[in-house]
Amino acid sequence: MFTDADRELLDLSGFARMATLMPDGAPQLTVLWYRRVDDTLRIICPASAQKRRNLERDPRVAVIVEDPQSAFRFLEIRGQAEVVHDDTGARAELVQIARRYIGAQAEAYAAGLSADPRVILVVRPERIIRHF
Amino acid sequence: MFTDADRELLDLSGFARMATLMPDGAPQLTVLWYRRVDDTLRIICPASAQKRRNLERDPRVAVIVEDPQSAFRFLEIRGQAEVVHDDTGARAELVQIARRYIGAQAEAYAAGLSADPRVILVVRPERIIRHF
Repeated sequence: MFTDADRELLDLSGFARMATLMPDGAPQLTVLWYRRVDDTLRIICPASAQKRRNLERDPRVAVIVEDPQSAFRFLEIRGQAEVVHDDTGARAELVQIARRYIGAQAEAYAAGLSADPRVILVVRPERIIRHF
Repeated sequence: MFTDADRELLDLSGFARMATLMPDGAPQLTVLWYRRVDDTLRIICPASAQKRRNLERDPRVAVIVEDPQSAFRFLEIRGQAEVVHDDTGARAELVQIARRYIGAQAEAYAAGLSADPRVILVVRPERIIRHF
């Protein structure tokens, strides 16, 4: 699904911006850390987050990832996100994700999180629009 | 509608990320230049753009604007966007917008655009979610 050029961009440490759908169908947007795993993106959020509630009602999602050096060089990924309720797995995944952004501070960051359960969002692309 | 702190963030030269709704209701996302004018954001795009077609079918929109120095300091704006079909006005507005990002090169940039008609998107906030 992802080309070599996609993977190169996705494995830089840009942020993801993700759109989900509110109960009335209106869009909702957030800025997120993520990590590419094979042909998916992994994102961690609290189980209490609006985006988690949105995705369990309607899994359709759009995500853009930009080149951190050049925001107009970006991928738009449209697809569906699965919500995985696995707090232990989510915290382990978060260390991997955080390492992309804050390197050796990732463990300390993850250890300092609140006890609120975390979930893993697995974004599966159905269409990729390349702006590069 | 915008507070002083909102205006301060919006008048920095960060980019906007805007979500619109595709014909089937799924979200669509792009990266854009913008300019705040009073309590609205102004964005220019070609009349042929998917987001223009989306907004004329369903004007609901979400826009995030981040502090260019710190992406997790951001505003999420949910509201509606009006599409103004005024190519001359759009090109004049684009010079104002471009000046925020490329300064004195704005006129040359706008003069070099293709002849495809441009439209002005006027984003009117209904709810503002502050991540700062």
